[in-house]
Amino acid sequence: MTTIGILGAGQLGWMLALAGYPLGFRFHFLDPVPGSPASCLAPQKVADYADQAALAYFARGVDLVTYEFENVPVESARFLERRLPVYPPPLALEKAQDRLIEKDFFRSLGIPTVAYRAVQSLEDLRVGVEEIGLPALLKTRRMGYDGKGQVMIADEAMIDSAWETLKGAPLILEAFTKFRRELSVLAVRSASGQCVFYPLVENHHREGILRLSLAPVPDLEVKLQNTAEMYAARVMEALDYVGVLAIEFFQTDEGLLANEMAPRVHNSGHWTIEGAVTSQFENHLRAITGYPLGAVAVNGWCAMINLIGSVPEFPDLLSIPGVHLHWYHKSARPNRKLGHLTMVVSDPEALNAMLRQVGEKLLLHPNNGGWGAWVKELLFHE
Amino acid sequence: MTTIGILGAGQLGWMLALAGYPLGFRFHFLDPVPGSPASCLAPQKVADYADQAALAYFARGVDLVTYEFENVPVESARFLERRLPVYPPPLALEKAQDRLIEKDFFRSLGIPTVAYRAVQSLEDLRVGVEEIGLPALLKTRRMGYDGKGQVMIADEAMIDSAWETLKGAPLILEAFTKFRRELSVLAVRSASGQCVFYPLVENHHREGILRLSLAPVPDLEVKLQNTAEMYAARVMEALDYVGVLAIEFFQTDEGLLANEMAPRVHNSGHWTIEGAVTSQFENHLRAITGYPLGAVAVNGWCAMINLIGSVPEFPDLLSIPGVHLHWYHKSARPNRKLGHLTMVVSDPEALNAMLRQVGEKLLLHPNNGGWGAWVKELLFHE
Repeated sequence: MTTIGILGAGQLGWMLALAGYPLGFRFHFLDPVPGSPASCLAPQKVADYADQAALAYFARGVDLVTYEFENVPVESARFLERRLPVYPPPLALEKAQDRLIEKDFFRSLGIPTVAYRAVQSLEDLRVGVEEIGLPALLKTRRMGYDGKGQVMIADEAMIDSAWETLKGAPLILEAFTKFRRELSVLAVRSASGQCVFYPLVENHHREGILRLSLAPVPDLEVKLQNTAEMYAARVMEALDYVGVLAIEFFQTDEGLLANEMAPRVHNSGHWTIEGAVTSQFENHLRAITGYPLGAVAVNGWCAMINLIGSVPEFPDLLSIPGVHLHWYHKSARPNRKLGHLTMVVSDPEALNAMLRQVGEKLLLHPNNGGWGAWVKELLFHE
Repeated sequence: MTTIGILGAGQLGWMLALAGYPLGFRFHFLDPVPGSPASCLAPQKVADYADQAALAYFARGVDLVTYEFENVPVESARFLERRLPVYPPPLALEKAQDRLIEKDFFRSLGIPTVAYRAVQSLEDLRVGVEEIGLPALLKTRRMGYDGKGQVMIADEAMIDSAWETLKGAPLILEAFTKFRRELSVLAVRSASGQCVFYPLVENHHREGILRLSLAPVPDLEVKLQNTAEMYAARVMEALDYVGVLAIEFFQTDEGLLANEMAPRVHNSGHWTIEGAVTSQFENHLRAITGYPLGAVAVNGWCAMINLIGSVPEFPDLLSIPGVHLHWYHKSARPNRKLGHLTMVVSDPEALNAMLRQVGEKLLLHPNNGGWGAWVKELLFHE
């Protein structure tokens, strides 16, 4: 019996455990927040990710370690790696945790990105704006997620205030590129180097948070898929990667630009639970335990809607035939991802109709999570 | 947050919890065996099913009660019912626990069965054999499962020894009917009376234990499906049933004969986890919590193989693309159901090919569970 240690006990760890129990695996979690979602599914060690005594204790109870969270200190991952297998490799954390290192890494592999420049001073920022042009985004290099730690600079008058907002942390200035849409690829690599790729996903963010994913991407061209797979394969090869990797892209008139990567299962892959023969969660576990990877063929046209900030009426949502609910057992809080819905149907028109049905249900209920605006925009195209 | 109490913490309870967590439910189990499979997924109260003090304690921690086991004492279910909702209704347990009461119940609803007769003495048995003819099966009325508690009487010379084997318990003599095949229907009824039915399943038993299920039944005729649904609807209506109900049938030249029913999720419905839009486990939970029932459309041609008695090599089995493993985390023991495999494919020929692939893997490994014979017979038609 293999026991898998997971750093982080949020919804990703939760879904890993739900996928892994039927494969015969057991789980232990380590997370600093007591009573994290996954703690009702398996034992949770409550400790800071940097607490090496706790990590050593944790390591003694498990056979290998993975993470559901890319901001685990690299030092902690390396500390564990001296004791037992750790997948994905800590090097992937190192590349993914810093936006500058990440973009340099993409470029070093011939993977295009937006123009960018390191910023350590107001002077750097001014030079960067000269070089890159406006609008541009000033971002912290580390710990940004769900739109946090970034400021848009639309015109030169905003440079000083952007600097005042973020100064103190290492920063990066990125060109704000006009893109047709945001896509992501979910790739899986086994220890033996076998790679599989799910079809590209179209992602819609609002206020920096993923709201809606469509998979496969409507009007997906083979060339686009091939390019994304080639880029993901290069990244995984370079890192000797094992597990699921997500890379987010901007699709522009000049092709795909890599935006960022996550060395873990990813929100834009949640549709795979019902929508693919093998889910991203199962394939991550298969990869890290040395099992053969599972088939990634899709079961239809899929959509995933995040339930953010407030609790919808479950029975009401589930009255729509074919809607699947995944609730994470978290308490409601503005902008918090509390669960998601999945739909899988046999043609794109039926998917649109179902999305509108879901949208009607969401709009009928009080929306302290700010459902109103994005639901109208994304599900009704208003 | 609804907490569901489940009597029994075996693999059915385990799969109910795995299906129910994403819907936002919590679970408590009650089972007399410490460390039952489901106990790693939710708290387990260790107690006998007849221990009313333990039942009362258990009831205080949950919002409603269901069971994964049809031999819970009816008195216990009624005891709980005075405190909180219990689904399916205890009356269903009462009808299902005694083969004589069950067959009388089927007949009272106009549902055909094999010929049968109550047996309380050797004299009864002789009269029964006169009436029903041979071969016939002598069975205990209660607590029989997986072929236990029954003796085949092939000729008159076997009457006495059959009596000697089973005497002491209330018995039933049943005609041993030539049947084309064994089928089962999985039906779901909500508290509001809404009913849905999965397509009929073809079941193959060996040594009294289910080995292989195929769904939908190959060459399924609409008339057969309609008849099975009509019978299941009558049973559920008569019991004011809520939850999943399984009825096993013999398909004979004279039509369907009801053999037995299980007032719970059922082994012949395990294929629905991957094979149907909504699994039997999710639909049971939706029914008992008053949620709308989920769609029961199938995703393809499905097969389920029970893994019985010994542990196969997981990575080897999972190297066949599209094979899904469900391991119950039980220790191996002869004739014990340890897990199952599911396959879902788009045409019946591909399903046969995949079954043969699985069969080859199973035959390659030591088979202390007696895989050899039935695998050759059922998967290779030898």
